[in-house]
Amino acid sequence: MRDESAAPVLAVDIGGTKIAAGVVSAQGDVLVSDRAPTTLGPDDGDLAIWERLHTLCENVLDAAGRPAIQGVGVGCGGPMRWPAGVVSPVNLLPWRDFPLRDRLSAAYPDVPVRVHNDAVAVVVAEHWRGAGRGVANMLGMVVSTGVGGGLVLGGRLIDGRSGNAGHVGHIVADPTGPECGCGGRGCVEAIARGPALVTWARQQGWRQDDEAATAKHLADDALAGDKIARKAFERAGHAVGIGIASAVALCDLELVVVGGGVSQVGGLLFEPLEQSLRTYARIEFARDVVVRRASLDQNAGIVGAAAFVLAGDQYWAPG
Amino acid sequence: MRDESAAPVLAVDIGGTKIAAGVVSAQGDVLVSDRAPTTLGPDDGDLAIWERLHTLCENVLDAAGRPAIQGVGVGCGGPMRWPAGVVSPVNLLPWRDFPLRDRLSAAYPDVPVRVHNDAVAVVVAEHWRGAGRGVANMLGMVVSTGVGGGLVLGGRLIDGRSGNAGHVGHIVADPTGPECGCGGRGCVEAIARGPALVTWARQQGWRQDDEAATAKHLADDALAGDKIARKAFERAGHAVGIGIASAVALCDLELVVVGGGVSQVGGLLFEPLEQSLRTYARIEFARDVVVRRASLDQNAGIVGAAAFVLAGDQYWAPG
Repeated sequence: MRDESAAPVLAVDIGGTKIAAGVVSAQGDVLVSDRAPTTLGPDDGDLAIWERLHTLCENVLDAAGRPAIQGVGVGCGGPMRWPAGVVSPVNLLPWRDFPLRDRLSAAYPDVPVRVHNDAVAVVVAEHWRGAGRGVANMLGMVVSTGVGGGLVLGGRLIDGRSGNAGHVGHIVADPTGPECGCGGRGCVEAIARGPALVTWARQQGWRQDDEAATAKHLADDALAGDKIARKAFERAGHAVGIGIASAVALCDLELVVVGGGVSQVGGLLFEPLEQSLRTYARIEFARDVVVRRASLDQNAGIVGAAAFVLAGDQYWAPG
Repeated sequence: MRDESAAPVLAVDIGGTKIAAGVVSAQGDVLVSDRAPTTLGPDDGDLAIWERLHTLCENVLDAAGRPAIQGVGVGCGGPMRWPAGVVSPVNLLPWRDFPLRDRLSAAYPDVPVRVHNDAVAVVVAEHWRGAGRGVANMLGMVVSTGVGGGLVLGGRLIDGRSGNAGHVGHIVADPTGPECGCGGRGCVEAIARGPALVTWARQQGWRQDDEAATAKHLADDALAGDKIARKAFERAGHAVGIGIASAVALCDLELVVVGGGVSQVGGLLFEPLEQSLRTYARIEFARDVVVRRASLDQNAGIVGAAAFVLAGDQYWAPG
């Protein structure tokens, strides 16, 4: 008799600029993976993106020797209706209320298809196989074009009412701070997301004539010693530290794992982050919370997506 | 054969100014209760308080007809070592590292003795038998001399690493705000706890000659139309609203239940709270979170303490 629990999983990671798919073994190893851009032609609609994704999935299954799979796990940019898997990723305009889970179920019948937020998938990967392994109470953050995250408490992924728990980017870091894309004000994301750093730095005089300047350029300049660029990351670290302090007070965390593009700048973000965290997280139980850098590579999203199926007792509990 | 699950529970609530004990039926009804002050004589030590508590427990058991009990549940002021039940209540100075659970186990052997934070007990009561009944994801708050709380996610009490989850009073509401007793700055508690309201109001000119003025007097004056007093509760509501907005973003809550002495002022707190919450909680999933007033009376602490034993599958999960 075939042991279904030993079968691999088809795992998918759908972000704003690329789609990735992989075949992940029951042990959590990525056997095969591939990726494709989400850049669109002028006539590409929701089905063009779907067909590109389906082809990518078929290709990785072919490359893995067409194994029987025990399920499909997906991390996808939000917002989405969860656990229905009806998605409207902010950065993938043709998909509005796109029935991603139903499409995948039709393509890969008779196995569970589990769709969750892409930042949650990355955090699950860090908890399952990365910097958070073995820790019962942790917050994971992805500081990038947005600021997302996921929450593991008592060893289990926390979903909240609608699968949106972990939105640490919308903790209020400064009630008089800049407007946020969500409509609020002073959210961690409004201050610390990459584009916000760039906007702030340009207001201070950094590369004002360079329309194409990005957070990556800002990081390069900060590492080269540019004062405005360094100050931009310092502001971001300060805001993230306040957000973490509030999360630790509310959830009594032992570990916070921080990853994402903006965090690649290293100490220029993490040092002010630590300073701010230690200033605000002063109640006794919060003082020794540890902040660790994310340890997984660009496959984290695929590994976490696979965990929704392979470790469902910890990471998949809708309803 | 006797059905142990039908037996009542001895429930204890230890606050800063009073001790309460009760016998609670397996259905959650308070059959008997009594209370005693914690005021101390000059020579009263840790054992004097313990003896007063033990006598109170014996009295309520006598009054209930000395039933066999299935356990002892306790809510006690923090901090404490949890789940060890070694307590050091801020407002009960003779108890420092007092082995409350061990004492109760010796007095009432062969049944479980479960000790948790007093604010957590109140929130558990609201979830089990009060305003939060049937809701899977809720935050409960007690706005009083301090600002405490508890967190229920996925239908279960969240403990965090050390039993301290739910400390919503130490979410940062204003990073440039007043110093907090915890050593931090701008915590919800530093702005919204009763004594902080009084301090602020007196700085603005309210009852400056009345050394004995309390938050209760401030509430009376606010309800009578005093402008400074009203503004004091407005500031508190604003801070609490920001704290709730951050908690909703992180935990995807459907309900927040607010109780405690400061909340007795009603709309003068809840209206600015709602306004601030709706200003900051703008991300889509957070917009329709509901804030409800606590519905239980002064027995809430006893009911919640009983729930640690009677509904342990939801509310008691150390380790």
